[in-house]
Amino acid sequence: MLTSNFLLATLKETPADAELISHQLMLRAGLIRKLASGLYTWMPLGLRVLKKVENIVREEMNAAGALEILMPAVQPAELWIETDRWEKYGNELLKIKDRHERDFCFGPTHEEVVTNLMRGELNSYKQLPINVYQIQTKFRDEIRPRFGVMRAREFLMKDSYSFHADMESLKKTYQDMVDTYMRIFTRLGLRFRAVLADTGQIGGAFSHEFQVLAESGEDIVVYSDGSDYAANIERAENLEKTQPVKEGDTSPDGKGKLKFARGIEVGHVFQLGDKYSKSMNLNVLDENGKALHPQMGCYGIGVSRIVAAAIEQNNDKNGIIWPDAMAPFQIAIVPMQMHKAYRVRELAMKLYEELRAAGFDVLLDDRNERAGVMFSTMDLIGIPHRIVIGERGIDAEIVEYKHRTSEMSENIAISEIVSYLKAR
Amino acid sequence: MLTSNFLLATLKETPADAELISHQLMLRAGLIRKLASGLYTWMPLGLRVLKKVENIVREEMNAAGALEILMPAVQPAELWIETDRWEKYGNELLKIKDRHERDFCFGPTHEEVVTNLMRGELNSYKQLPINVYQIQTKFRDEIRPRFGVMRAREFLMKDSYSFHADMESLKKTYQDMVDTYMRIFTRLGLRFRAVLADTGQIGGAFSHEFQVLAESGEDIVVYSDGSDYAANIERAENLEKTQPVKEGDTSPDGKGKLKFARGIEVGHVFQLGDKYSKSMNLNVLDENGKALHPQMGCYGIGVSRIVAAAIEQNNDKNGIIWPDAMAPFQIAIVPMQMHKAYRVRELAMKLYEELRAAGFDVLLDDRNERAGVMFSTMDLIGIPHRIVIGERGIDAEIVEYKHRTSEMSENIAISEIVSYLKAR
Repeated sequence: MLTSNFLLATLKETPADAELISHQLMLRAGLIRKLASGLYTWMPLGLRVLKKVENIVREEMNAAGALEILMPAVQPAELWIETDRWEKYGNELLKIKDRHERDFCFGPTHEEVVTNLMRGELNSYKQLPINVYQIQTKFRDEIRPRFGVMRAREFLMKDSYSFHADMESLKKTYQDMVDTYMRIFTRLGLRFRAVLADTGQIGGAFSHEFQVLAESGEDIVVYSDGSDYAANIERAENLEKTQPVKEGDTSPDGKGKLKFARGIEVGHVFQLGDKYSKSMNLNVLDENGKALHPQMGCYGIGVSRIVAAAIEQNNDKNGIIWPDAMAPFQIAIVPMQMHKAYRVRELAMKLYEELRAAGFDVLLDDRNERAGVMFSTMDLIGIPHRIVIGERGIDAEIVEYKHRTSEMSENIAISEIVSYLKAR
Repeated sequence: MLTSNFLLATLKETPADAELISHQLMLRAGLIRKLASGLYTWMPLGLRVLKKVENIVREEMNAAGALEILMPAVQPAELWIETDRWEKYGNELLKIKDRHERDFCFGPTHEEVVTNLMRGELNSYKQLPINVYQIQTKFRDEIRPRFGVMRAREFLMKDSYSFHADMESLKKTYQDMVDTYMRIFTRLGLRFRAVLADTGQIGGAFSHEFQVLAESGEDIVVYSDGSDYAANIERAENLEKTQPVKEGDTSPDGKGKLKFARGIEVGHVFQLGDKYSKSMNLNVLDENGKALHPQMGCYGIGVSRIVAAAIEQNNDKNGIIWPDAMAPFQIAIVPMQMHKAYRVRELAMKLYEELRAAGFDVLLDDRNERAGVMFSTMDLIGIPHRIVIGERGIDAEIVEYKHRTSEMSENIAISEIVSYLKAR
């Protein structure tokens, strides 16, 4: 992409009402724009990041054998009345009346809809287990939306739901999903922890949260320095049932001391059991022709939230630092004076085409701007790899390469730069 | 994909309340399920088709230089009041009150939101032209939703909006979009016509509809058998302003006689002019530092509707006939008795892997069913290419190949089948 064909919507000033660094940077880098409280438009640069996250989630869910579906955003009240959540869910449920005065909501989650769907599809244990997922726009009418897409009202979610003939099968798929989530967050290039958690409003017996580690995180992760034990603070304190857990306490498994870290919840997996299959009377016949309520699991990932969490974890005073897998463009080509220097322009276009052919997403800054302006834009929007092309470099047959996290650039032979980037 | 790992949700009986053949077939083939009036879940098989359409639309929009964004589904009333459409749009606008009793709607279209967005981004003619698009869930509260996804309340739409310093630039992008739409519908493998149309509720001066030709279409397309003239019936009759147009009349351009065809509208492009930029006071500075209201175009494609329209155009008594580009799987492998015959199973899996490696989406029917059951499932769900593998064929070193539209199958050497399918 050439910047002249793109909508770079960077801002010079930090918007006043953005408290969180990710919210500030997403506005300043032109990833999002606010439409109304808790409602954001994804700009071209931001949407590229969102789609990369979405695609990695989709690839790993497919690889795990889950089947993608797409359920409506708008859901009839009747189903929520069946599970007794129409009133209980509270004011975060955005209720809607249609033109015939029938009650609907803009779905914040889809347990009711998917259980209803399966009432029509499942009749035998032979069809189990099954795991379906969607990547879809949801709405939660937060009383005070803030922090940008971190806690928006409208957001993009991957939610999946599995159905099982017995607990053993549920546990197996649950573990598959934990493993899949580990692969997803590893591929995204994020530092994270999977921690034991309580089950909250969704219900069920057992759950894990996936926490992206960041100093600004709202959640406290408690982990052992001598074992795999990790839990969120609520879970850790509930289990202890004595007094607040503190750093340095002995881990509940007796192995090591507890440490604290701050995290941002980006994923949550639940063993729901038969809560929904029972209340909505979903049943299938078992091997003996007897009806059973399938055991269910549900597995969520906050796709849009991941973008903000990644920025909370990866930024410096100059802007965002994208992990390669999430970067809107992996490589920025910054040519010096290309509007005057024919050789610079020619080499910039040549490298642009070669790097694209090698499979990279490349942004060529063809604005007629000073070097400093172009550098600070590329730093702000967080492009991991930067190539600077100038006349003197061409004379010496080199370009300057700098990683977003390096202080210094290095000279790379023009003939080597493509293979150099491929090898990184 | 193996059928045993998939959710084939075919139905034996035609659902009683489905009038249109595409609606019947989408339910019977298990592409969709109804949640409530005008609300449908896309099942795994249907979503594969929807995503193929979506991807072709995205690729061609990107190739045309349009920039993808994603605006919220939920829109504040204030913007609709600015353009005087909050009341005028009528009951199809699904109005919502949030927990603070503020007015919103579930957007049926995004002229207001995108014009508001550009008020914040555009300030100079140098930023023009710009063309942004999104592929997004929309809602129109139809009084009597029917025909399945053909006229659903919640639907998937590609909508784009362009902004220009003058009419000449608008006309150029408008023509680019007409050309892009021609490429999209051609790639999808549909028979269609671009026809002149009136502008309706969106407003503006000039528009073209894209009509997928099908006998069951609700719209009448009037075209000349001696020239490029084509219009929808409303436009043809308005321009004549005398008496109803009928088949055999002389074309308005004097070249040829008029013919009628039936069509389903799947795309519509508009020259909006300054209707929205004026009413919402979007302006940029021109070369002389004077404020101007940008000229706007808007361009829609009914992504989910295309799936139904394609079926209306391409079906027979046995079911759907997908064009290759839209097929959920291009190739069905149907092995005879694979659960008993080791050689059949082995060859089926080998061809499955080879064809997938060659880039095909392949469905291997590994159900323990009679041949007739497997054949009718593959016909119903419309897979274009079918390979039957049996023991006698293996002895003769052949498989049976049949196209969905052929009466007869042909024998192809096992060693040739992959290259045979690649060449088709």
